Amino acid sequence: MAEIPQGFWDGEHRMLARLISLVEDDLPGKEEVLRKLHPHTGRAYILGLTGSPGAGKSSLVDSVVREIRKRNQTVGVIAVDPSSPFSGGAFLGDRIRMNEHALDDGVFVRSMATRGSLGGLAKTSKEVVKVMDAFGMDWVIIETVGVGQSELDIMYIADTTVVVLTPGAGDSIQSMKAGIMEIADVFAINKCDMPGTDTLTLEVNLMLDMQDDHIKWRPPVKLTTNLNKAEGITELLEAIESHRDYLNEKGFFAERRRERTKNETLDIVNYQWQRLVMEEVNRPGRVSDLLEKVAAREVDPYTASAKIINWIIANLKKA
Amino acid sequence: MAEIPQGFWDGEHRMLARLISLVEDDLPGKEEVLRKLHPHTGRAYILGLTGSPGAGKSSLVDSVVREIRKRNQTVGVIAVDPSSPFSGGAFLGDRIRMNEHALDDGVFVRSMATRGSLGGLAKTSKEVVKVMDAFGMDWVIIETVGVGQSELDIMYIADTTVVVLTPGAGDSIQSMKAGIMEIADVFAINKCDMPGTDTLTLEVNLMLDMQDDHIKWRPPVKLTTNLNKAEGITELLEAIESHRDYLNEKGFFAERRRERTKNETLDIVNYQWQRLVMEEVNRPGRVSDLLEKVAAREVDPYTASAKIINWIIANLKKA
Repeated sequence: MAEIPQGFWDGEHRMLARLISLVEDDLPGKEEVLRKLHPHTGRAYILGLTGSPGAGKSSLVDSVVREIRKRNQTVGVIAVDPSSPFSGGAFLGDRIRMNEHALDDGVFVRSMATRGSLGGLAKTSKEVVKVMDAFGMDWVIIETVGVGQSELDIMYIADTTVVVLTPGAGDSIQSMKAGIMEIADVFAINKCDMPGTDTLTLEVNLMLDMQDDHIKWRPPVKLTTNLNKAEGITELLEAIESHRDYLNEKGFFAERRRERTKNETLDIVNYQWQRLVMEEVNRPGRVSDLLEKVAAREVDPYTASAKIINWIIANLKKA
Repeated sequence: MAEIPQGFWDGEHRMLARLISLVEDDLPGKEEVLRKLHPHTGRAYILGLTGSPGAGKSSLVDSVVREIRKRNQTVGVIAVDPSSPFSGGAFLGDRIRMNEHALDDGVFVRSMATRGSLGGLAKTSKEVVKVMDAFGMDWVIIETVGVGQSELDIMYIADTTVVVLTPGAGDSIQSMKAGIMEIADVFAINKCDMPGTDTLTLEVNLMLDMQDDHIKWRPPVKLTTNLNKAEGITELLEAIESHRDYLNEKGFFAERRRERTKNETLDIVNYQWQRLVMEEVNRPGRVSDLLEKVAAREVDPYTASAKIINWIIANLKKA
């Protein structure tokens, strides 16, 4: 598929799903499709939402989606779930969540549990964001579990990042070590009808007060719940929009988009290179032979890598 | 420093610390040093230890270190702590833990909280492992927090990986989704004097039973505590050594080392390439000019990346 099907531009979810699969599965023509979509991107507002497992992120995202729909805006949701053979990963979640919004043309939900894809989940997520953006979604929400580097990498593409915490669930100052706190633009204390909410709110505010001289934007801390009925969602969305206004006023929004596009380009440069390397490695020949010698400790990795780089470049020169 | 100081070969901790700093800080001569250390590596047994924040990993590692020392073997510890400006990262931990083993020549502890280093924490950790290995440590223990991709990347270099769980601390089946369960060779149920230990042990065993046909080695589940006095540590180390014996008998140990050395070489190839790219980006000239055009949306990232690759290769051709 080198041409974007007309149905995609006409707003057919079936075509959106098809293009996302093409990107996710790394099918031929993917790069050409992304190149063609590029001029149509940059309009969606990208909202990141992250937190520990069990923080109630999925329900919170559903409530936020409902709130966005009340305003007649459209939204794409990417639920990134580093899957595990032990849990079955994103499959169950996908089925449950598809039902709720299945008949709504203004919502498209996609769970991603790709493992081991070249370039990783962060790369694929960014590409799926682009597809949803080009499709014309007003919002793209990326929901991720966890505190690792790969989740942080995903969140760097968000315009506003909401960190979801829950009282009692081990989301104490301990877990705040892990790096997600740095990327928070807004805090949601979810399940706020549970005991421990006051303490957690106090802790987060205290921590933010200690940082006041380092940060320009002080993340608001909002209480939300989805247990019996959704509460605090309007306020959460308003906090997100305050952050959006702040970014716009200060010119940070445009600046961040510029930086992101540059980094995206460098990611592609590195990805293309890695593809060239892997082609050499998987083909019988001098590169794979040399790697065998490294494995046998006959050649050291540093000498070998210099040779491999030279060989790949010599090949490209000929081509 | 292109020569390895004699003190390093003589077992001086001061020199070990100096070489680790050179690697961590990416100082000139680093690659030459790693190249020279390479022939002396491959002898240490690499033990990974991971789990959620608050699982008591540090105390458990200290107990394991004491157990190893009882056997008159030497051990290097790398505590990887993705630091955060909110918590101060690894600094506090470093000070506390240095004290206990400060007078013991057979133990060397290093906390790592490097952020944003080129190639990331995983790359630097691997290099520090090499330095400790070449120094002659019998064991190298890598301790990491969390469940993200970057922690998993670090753990792939371990010969045996211990996943530490604690009862009640949210370490239920929920958190097992996140991918660390797949890399476990041994489970330690730590703080086993706390309520919920039986349930958690049952859950983990159940989960392992469900997987029996997929895995060759069934990870043993060991109970440990460090609260009043350390218990279960001998049994934990014996479980680790059973896994070691298993790897040796099946030939997996040698095979994994071979694969690891190959991957290490490819990592260097990619890292060298990224360095070339960053040199071009940071220098005023056609690459940085083109990136500005991409940021202004005058050129798309895909067209730009193809040009950048060609330019870098043309430069190398001349050199």
